[in-house]
Amino acid sequence: MRTHFCGLVNEAMIGQTVTLCGWADVARNLGGICFIDLRDHEGIVQVVAEPDNPAYPTAAEVGYEYCLRITGTVRARHSVNDKIKTGKVEVLAESIEILNKSGALPFYNHENPGEDIRLRYRYLDLRRPEMQKTMRKRIALVQALRRHLDASGFQDIETPILTKATPEGARDYLVPSRVHPGQFFALPQSPQLFKQLLMMAGFDRYYQIARCFRDEDLRADRQPEFTQLDMEFAFITERDIQDFVEAMIRDVFSEVQGVELAKPFPRMTYAEAMRRYGSDKPDLRIDLELTDIAELVKSSEFKVFTDWASNEDGRVAALRVPAGATMSRKQIDDNGAYAAKYGANGLAWLKVEDLGKGREGVNSPIAKFLDDATLAAVLSATGAQSGDLILFGAGPWKTVTDFMGALRIKVAKDAGLVKEGWQPLWVTDFPMFEWDAEENRFVALHHPFTAPKVDDVADLVANAKTAVSRGYDMVLNGNEIGGGSVRIHRSEMQSQVFDLLGISKDEAQVKFGFLLEALKYGAPPHGGIAFGIDRIAALMAGTESIRDVIAFPKTASAQCLLTSAPSAVPDKQLAELHVRVREK
Amino acid sequence: MRTHFCGLVNEAMIGQTVTLCGWADVARNLGGICFIDLRDHEGIVQVVAEPDNPAYPTAAEVGYEYCLRITGTVRARHSVNDKIKTGKVEVLAESIEILNKSGALPFYNHENPGEDIRLRYRYLDLRRPEMQKTMRKRIALVQALRRHLDASGFQDIETPILTKATPEGARDYLVPSRVHPGQFFALPQSPQLFKQLLMMAGFDRYYQIARCFRDEDLRADRQPEFTQLDMEFAFITERDIQDFVEAMIRDVFSEVQGVELAKPFPRMTYAEAMRRYGSDKPDLRIDLELTDIAELVKSSEFKVFTDWASNEDGRVAALRVPAGATMSRKQIDDNGAYAAKYGANGLAWLKVEDLGKGREGVNSPIAKFLDDATLAAVLSATGAQSGDLILFGAGPWKTVTDFMGALRIKVAKDAGLVKEGWQPLWVTDFPMFEWDAEENRFVALHHPFTAPKVDDVADLVANAKTAVSRGYDMVLNGNEIGGGSVRIHRSEMQSQVFDLLGISKDEAQVKFGFLLEALKYGAPPHGGIAFGIDRIAALMAGTESIRDVIAFPKTASAQCLLTSAPSAVPDKQLAELHVRVREK
Repeated sequence: MRTHFCGLVNEAMIGQTVTLCGWADVARNLGGICFIDLRDHEGIVQVVAEPDNPAYPTAAEVGYEYCLRITGTVRARHSVNDKIKTGKVEVLAESIEILNKSGALPFYNHENPGEDIRLRYRYLDLRRPEMQKTMRKRIALVQALRRHLDASGFQDIETPILTKATPEGARDYLVPSRVHPGQFFALPQSPQLFKQLLMMAGFDRYYQIARCFRDEDLRADRQPEFTQLDMEFAFITERDIQDFVEAMIRDVFSEVQGVELAKPFPRMTYAEAMRRYGSDKPDLRIDLELTDIAELVKSSEFKVFTDWASNEDGRVAALRVPAGATMSRKQIDDNGAYAAKYGANGLAWLKVEDLGKGREGVNSPIAKFLDDATLAAVLSATGAQSGDLILFGAGPWKTVTDFMGALRIKVAKDAGLVKEGWQPLWVTDFPMFEWDAEENRFVALHHPFTAPKVDDVADLVANAKTAVSRGYDMVLNGNEIGGGSVRIHRSEMQSQVFDLLGISKDEAQVKFGFLLEALKYGAPPHGGIAFGIDRIAALMAGTESIRDVIAFPKTASAQCLLTSAPSAVPDKQLAELHVRVREK
Repeated sequence: MRTHFCGLVNEAMIGQTVTLCGWADVARNLGGICFIDLRDHEGIVQVVAEPDNPAYPTAAEVGYEYCLRITGTVRARHSVNDKIKTGKVEVLAESIEILNKSGALPFYNHENPGEDIRLRYRYLDLRRPEMQKTMRKRIALVQALRRHLDASGFQDIETPILTKATPEGARDYLVPSRVHPGQFFALPQSPQLFKQLLMMAGFDRYYQIARCFRDEDLRADRQPEFTQLDMEFAFITERDIQDFVEAMIRDVFSEVQGVELAKPFPRMTYAEAMRRYGSDKPDLRIDLELTDIAELVKSSEFKVFTDWASNEDGRVAALRVPAGATMSRKQIDDNGAYAAKYGANGLAWLKVEDLGKGREGVNSPIAKFLDDATLAAVLSATGAQSGDLILFGAGPWKTVTDFMGALRIKVAKDAGLVKEGWQPLWVTDFPMFEWDAEENRFVALHHPFTAPKVDDVADLVANAKTAVSRGYDMVLNGNEIGGGSVRIHRSEMQSQVFDLLGISKDEAQVKFGFLLEALKYGAPPHGGIAFGIDRIAALMAGTESIRDVIAFPKTASAQCLLTSAPSAVPDKQLAELHVRVREK
């Protein structure tokens, strides 16, 4: 139906007759001449219909977003438009066919309306060149990943969507079975166990761009269904896996984004990341670090410090905010309120107005509790300079780490201290378990299939609290973009880990019996990783929201505003599925 | 963990030390020497441990399917084994590490046990070289398709799995919403409407290897979830689409299967296919054709023939079975019973024992009802030769077409008349509607979004019964491997087609309101096609069952024997989803 794309018409084509298809991005009549900006996915070209032109009557009818097929001659443009690729040429229309009209638009292409209206008219939203660019970035990312993996001998294998209730900890979406009354499929939270089974099945290298489902309350940037690049390797160590995928991510960023990432990526243990950055996914674009000062303040007179400094589960940490001494009392209070959201009971602070003046040079409600030596030691340990602000957190280790880590990011953003660029790193040596005080049991920090560093079951049991796993995360600019581990490949170890996680033998048999069974038939050592495609695409596209890189996303209340899903269904249909809606 | 793959060890490596990982395909002790056939996905190599060898004690422990890591030296083999790629060499073991033991196996690698046990221990089933080969054929197919499409500017876009009840006619799988009590998502029967919306959104060329779901009673070779290559094009005609995908399929068969398909594919209208082959997906590997003889027999004395020959909705057809005159009475009766399953009320037959002898030369219960001229005309029309059998069907047009078409395939298979090779074709010009006598309304032969050939709404309404659609199927060896159409892109036409299909305005608004709305904003002309990946992979792999090209398929009763899905879930979980199980 066309000879060329609108956005690719160029000066070399002057004098040629072309047929173009697309939408009227703009249609107007200026001084008796019709101008139509005809748009397709490649871009926009100006089409002109002059009054003596046979296409003129049709051109005069054209409105915004009319779908058109236009034949005409390419000619040089009088007034060059530098803003568009085709700005040196235009097409003099010979014939215009209206392929479809458009009614009054809910919004115009050039606007960025509220998200609800964008989602309701998603087909119009996606026509906007900005959204085309964003979506095509995601497509290019996936294509580059596939190319890399196909060339490396990975097998792209589909795993079931209708499957068994999965054990990743989140809530499952369920699907009633018609054939088996009272029974349900679950949608997979990830293909974790299937990819492990594929390694036991001898596929050696597996990947899948896999749809995953979690029925969670949606925080700002979660979706009920999301996409991960799921990978698994047999006969391999964690370092081999990391080296392979690091090279893959570096190649893909180079190809799709034109960005050369660090080679090699920095590496950091979980312990170091939490200590220095208060996060297991530190944003290394921010130079600020936490300073542990428990040793310095443990004999001070500030009770909150001394109590937690001498508690083995406590932490006292300082965060130097460069040039932060100009912060108003209100700004400091706001930071305190922000830290409180992460569990802080209060936020002590100290302004270094003149470092040379010692105690006279600082302004702080807590300075009076610190003797001269302690004050000097704290200033020295944090590397404070005149004009800086120091924030202090004291409390349980995990709480202080969390809120000081969150504060580190907030104050850096507020002060414009986040550097440009891409800062990847590996975080390794995660604890195997975390103690859940509420449930009074261990929970898995990665998932229950992650291998411990120790190979010996008795050793793991004896040292469960401090056991380190063979898990690892890839972090980019403060986002965990990938996480994986070497898996348990021996039945006894898997049973023992279930036991440590408080999963009874019976429960393990019901939920994971097939895995325990499969591990008995020569399961190979194996491991893998999964990358969050939506998040990586959003980072590459420079958008905050993963909804911008999903063609038909759902709202925060898990609705599709375009199709009105979910919706009520006739009771007859539910009867066939042996379920009914519960009355309140 | 390894230096080479087992199956790739070769003579060039003689003298080298290699480290291999894999499974003991066979492990035995012959005359005091341990022989292990070590297998990975590339193949098998023989490993030898002699008694004076430090690896010997471990080698002696190894059982079938133990997972091993072996280091040793490649050497020439005394007795060459021509059956395996590595048959000229073996590896003299220096060290053997047992990575994992295997318990007593439910079946051995070399067996092909019952399908239930294969599915329950799928990870062992898939280890069999035959299954590795079959699955890897599917993987190669998908990879080749993607490569072709990526290179042609197609955009791989994911569409939702949690969506609105879809309208393809089959039963939906439903997913209760937790956030919206009493409401349900449906799993997509295909991404049909989403791909149309993507064309309206300006993506121009779309594809997706898409998971689709139908909650139907599973006939022999259906799965609750299946995979299609879903494609859509904007600004295009059906012939452009067909030419593009025909070239794609030809390329992919050449690349993956080493087969050159006909260029171009033969083309046939629906009417011709039904007339000549009694099927809209004719298997052209079979030369036999149906012959319409209504005109020849309409004044005969055989009432069944004359009645149906003069009925405008009737059909009288003959099928010549070459050399079929040797068929016994029992064989003919069996064919009659087979035809009865497709609706036949009886099957007349005629054996041509000696063509030269006229009436004397035929043996048939119905010959006496045909005068000499009619008999001669029938023999001539069917092209009968001495030794042939002719089968006759008379009845309603659709019934005769169906059972004669089915018979055509059966008698050809029985007589070994199905030729080797690959016979693709296009079937076009499908009727727009089929009359459903039970429901007393039209049903769509493709789906309700298929455009009619006529562009004019009034014309369609006036001639609905005979209207032809812009739909098309790609057929290969009697299988419909792809089906598509140009879609309706105007709101009025879509509303009219819904109306003709007996869908009320209200129902259309509830189910398809978003589509009708979307068509109002300059929707472009568009069309596409979907290919059944499971079926194409099964054809390529030479297996009858699509279950052999799905890693974790379900049984005919829609169960996963490996994970025991579906399964019961705690009522607490159902309460969160606002549903309960219905009591009987």
